[in-house]
Parts: sequence; structure tokens; C-alpha cells
Amino acid sequence: MKAIIVTDDKKLVWLESKKPEILDNEVLIKVTATAVNRADVVQKNGLYPPPPGASDILGLECSGVIEAIGGNVKKRKVGERVCALLTGGGYAEYASCPEEQAIPIPRGISLIEAASLPEVYATCWLNLFYEANMKGGDTVLLHAGASGIGTSAIQLCKLFECKTFVTAGTLGKISYCIELGADGGSLRQEKPFEDIKKWAPKGVDIILDPVGGEYFEDNLSVLTMEGRLILIGLMGGSKSQINLGLVLMKRQRIIGSTIRARNSTIKGKVMNDLHEKVWPHFESKKIIPIIHKMMDIKDANQAHSIMENNQNIGKIVLEV
Amino acid sequence: MKAIIVTDDKKLVWLESKKPEILDNEVLIKVTATAVNRADVVQKNGLYPPPPGASDILGLECSGVIEAIGGNVKKRKVGERVCALLTGGGYAEYASCPEEQAIPIPRGISLIEAASLPEVYATCWLNLFYEANMKGGDTVLLHAGASGIGTSAIQLCKLFECKTFVTAGTLGKISYCIELGADGGSLRQEKPFEDIKKWAPKGVDIILDPVGGEYFEDNLSVLTMEGRLILIGLMGGSKSQINLGLVLMKRQRIIGSTIRARNSTIKGKVMNDLHEKVWPHFESKKIIPIIHKMMDIKDANQAHSIMENNQNIGKIVLEV
Repeated sequence: MKAIIVTDDKKLVWLESKKPEILDNEVLIKVTATAVNRADVVQKNGLYPPPPGASDILGLECSGVIEAIGGNVKKRKVGERVCALLTGGGYAEYASCPEEQAIPIPRGISLIEAASLPEVYATCWLNLFYEANMKGGDTVLLHAGASGIGTSAIQLCKLFECKTFVTAGTLGKISYCIELGADGGSLRQEKPFEDIKKWAPKGVDIILDPVGGEYFEDNLSVLTMEGRLILIGLMGGSKSQINLGLVLMKRQRIIGSTIRARNSTIKGKVMNDLHEKVWPHFESKKIIPIIHKMMDIKDANQAHSIMENNQNIGKIVLEV
Repeated sequence: MKAIIVTDDKKLVWLESKKPEILDNEVLIKVTATAVNRADVVQKNGLYPPPPGASDILGLECSGVIEAIGGNVKKRKVGERVCALLTGGGYAEYASCPEEQAIPIPRGISLIEAASLPEVYATCWLNLFYEANMKGGDTVLLHAGASGIGTSAIQLCKLFECKTFVTAGTLGKISYCIELGADGGSLRQEKPFEDIKKWAPKGVDIILDPVGGEYFEDNLSVLTMEGRLILIGLMGGSKSQINLGLVLMKRQRIIGSTIRARNSTIKGKVMNDLHEKVWPHFESKKIIPIIHKMMDIKDANQAHSIMENNQNIGKIVLEV
């Protein structure tokens, strides 16, 4: 099969590669499309090695048709149109994963569009519901609100009756987020935390944060009593000071959370929740995939460049 | 009634004070004994104001006999021998609290001894089980292992089949902890974190930490994947650096937790758990109250001085 290979000078080239072999609990997917995640860019640059056992090909999600199943696979069958959360290997003609991580695509969504859903929705579901224990009425601060994760989180929060405030890098992105359902937004270049304090004078209940160090102290300062800061990335560095007095007296929680290195049981639980509780809302159009651009997998360099320059709103899909 | 009053020069004197009035959901307890907590010392020094609505008399726990009940009280009755978790007011002849916070004393334990139990067991139960989600087989690091909280946590962890490592300030305290059931210990003046890394090469699952700033970075460095650092005090200051890279990649949780300012629903849930799941083990002597000294309430200054000088192993009880 063909797959994207990272050259020594960090270029992505479409070359012959070894087709994955499946284990008894795995499915083999003939990939229709994959999508770009920031983790792919970090991995390309050598800063995010794949977890043990994972494919070293980039790509944390895909959509496609099941071509083969392992001997113990029970829920999935050959010929099914699925989208899947991968530990790696999506930028290829074929990808494999444990059966729990592949679920049917939502009705009313094309097979190509479905490639944009697994990683961002699984990340949001895991972090908002499992880690942050989100309940209707909570206020949620989303940094990088126009990202794939941001645009999914805005919609999920609205669906489950929570209010959101976003930060983003351009006024156009903020307008887009508000149109999508965000209740407020502020430019990250100005004083977003001043605006957040005005928007939520008692503090926000949950922060989903891909920034890290640069925002850390400000994040804790706008978090309410028993608020939860879910750290999902380090775009703004990893070092900070911390005032433990605030953490203690406000009973705050700081939770580091990545999805990629977790086991397939928890990933399967999240995907099952998405299938049951989120996918039906795509059919009714209450939520929609937010796709910045669909590109050919052979243009992966250009796709990465769009993300590296923060030019995208929502996901960049790569057709195989 | 008489109660301990804090003078302007931080002395504790036994003086006439106003007897508490009870609300419909409260019980009035004729106090037999109370016990000293570090929070009392901090409050005496003006650094821990009572939460809104709380008595301004010191004392976060007591034992005694119920003398009156409010009109809506359902579970408690006049004449019952109880121990109670208080938001304040224990250093007095009478104390009041919502009925959920007063539970019968364990069988086989004297009414005076029972004053040593509510605060430390409620704190340990809340933090180990609710906050840290402790499961049998977990490894738990307890700083200040010979404190009231430490000696209760050692016993609770052993009871629920978890292993503990303690730090403490003297070899005598460490020996005591190990006799009580701790699986290892190290002097805080030496290099305890080196010993902890040897004891738990993969890291510890849970840290119950009253120290804060001084230990913070070392604590995170010995915490395993998905480990939980429960911050319950700031004896070692409130400021630290934090490496968010570690927090993210190890999916660690940092949780600030105090019990005093929480509502009576959660306190009642904890007390009910203690009554059902922990008190029976006092009867069978699987766990025991660890009481450093029983003193007269009029000697409260001396009692505080023992705690301020870290001379106690376990609780200091004050008879009223």
C-alpha cells in the first residue's frame, strides 16, 4: 500500500509502505479519508513519538470501509462504513485498530466528512464528560475556539446546555465561533482573561486548554470553586508558576489528559458514547462537521502548513 | 456556657460565651471532648477565617451527648452519644451542627476517645475515596505520616489493601507509622523522594499532601501515570514551579481539597460512609484511635504548643 512517510527534512511524501497486519481483536480499514491533528505536526517534528505498539505512520483518525476483521471481532463486519480513532497510521491506504475504536459513521454525513469526527469528538467527550464531569448549566472556557477541538466543543457544550467562551487569534474566528453557538469570545492578543472575568464574574467551571504554560496562572485565576482545568496541549510552553493557595482554597482540579496513549477499553467506551449519544444529532443537523478544507493526501505538506500557520477553522480532511 | 476565646495576643482562655442556637436541621451537643487540628492553630493566628455562617469558636470536631434537636431532625435523637464533624465551635461546652454531621460513636470506643475521630477520618475518607478514587492495590504516599491524618490514613489504606509510604520528622515517628501498618518511611530531613523512588519504582498512585509548595515538584516527579496529588495543606508554602509537560504526558491530577467549607450534604455522605464502612472496624480492633495525649480543655494553649512543635503522634484530645 501507499502511505505518507516523513523524510529527514520533515517533508511528507506518498510512498510505498507495508500494509498493516491485524490482530484477533482488530479491523482493517480501507481508508477513504484521514484528517490533520496538531499532534501529527508535533510528531512530524520528532517531538511526539508514537506510543509503544503504535504505527509510526502519522494519522490519528480515518474513515473508510472495513476490508477484513480479526478472529475475535464481534461488533464490526466486513463492508461496514466506519470512522475510527487510531493510535497512528491514518495517513495511508489501509489502517488497523481494535474493533471498539471503529464505529459506524453518522447518518447524513458523507464517508469523507466522517474522517473529521473521531479525534476531536472523542477528545471533547472524554475531557468534558469523563474528566471534567460536565453538567448542564456549566460554563466552559475554550482556548483555540476555532480549532477542530474548539468547534466540536462549542457544539457539544451547546447540545448539553452549557455556556462557552472562546479565545482565538482573529476576529473572523471569534465571529465564526459565536455563530456556531459560543456565548462569548475574545482575541488572544488582547486581554482575554479580563473579558472572561466580566463574562463569568464567579469564574468558569471548566477550561479545556491546549495552551499550557503561557495561560496557566490566568486559567487558575478565572476558575471557580471546584473548577476543572483540563490540560490537553502545550502550545504555549510547559513551564509556569503555581499558587497552591488558590488551588487549595478553591478546591480546584488540574488534570493532564491525552487520549492517544490510553487503552482501547476507555477509547472504546468513548466511541460507543459518541455513537449512541452524539451521532444522532448529526442526523438531525443539531451539530455539523466543521471542515476547513478537503485536500488530497498527496498535499499533506500544504495541509500541515495551514495548521502550522493557524489558518484553519475546524478540520482539514485528507482524501486518500 | 463556657468556651475557648482567642485573646488579642493569641492565647486561648476558657470564658463565658453564648450557647449556640440550633436550626431546624441541627442538633445541639453537650460536648464531652474535642480535639486539636492544625487548622485550629492557623485560625488562632488569624490566617484561616471561619467560613460564612460558622461559629467563630475554634474546634472542628467533638464528641458528646445530644441535648436538643431541631424540628426537622430525623435520624438523631436526644440522649444519643455521638461524634460530630463541625465547621467550628468544638472548643466549648455546647456545639451545634446539621444532623448529618453527627453520627453514633463506634462500639468499643469511649466517648472521650471518639472526639479524635471525625475530622481525620472524614478528611481521609473524602480525599482517598472520593477525590483520589482509591482502589485496593494502590500505592499511597503520606506526608506527615505521624499526624492525626497520617495515622488514620495508614490504617484506612491497610484496611482497604493499599500500600503506604510515609515521611515524618523523627525516626521514632517513622517506626511508629511502620508498626501501625505503613510499608515504608523516610525522614523528611534526608532525601525522602529518593527513597520513595526506590520503594515505588513505577511511581505512587496517590499522594495525600499537607505540605504544598516545598514538596510540589518532587511530588509530581514520583507520581505514576494517572496518579493523583491531593493537596490538603500548605505547611511548606504555597508557591512552586510546575512542569506541565509531566502533568500532560502522565495524565496526572492535582486536586485542592479542604473539607471545612463544603456543604453538609457531602459532609453527611462522608460521615454516613464512616459509620457504615469504617466504624465496625474499630469494634473489631482492626483500626484504633491514635491519641497522643488527653488534656483538659483549659490546657488548650499547651495542647496547641505540642502541635506547633510537631511533638504529637496522632491526635491531641481536649476534655471539656
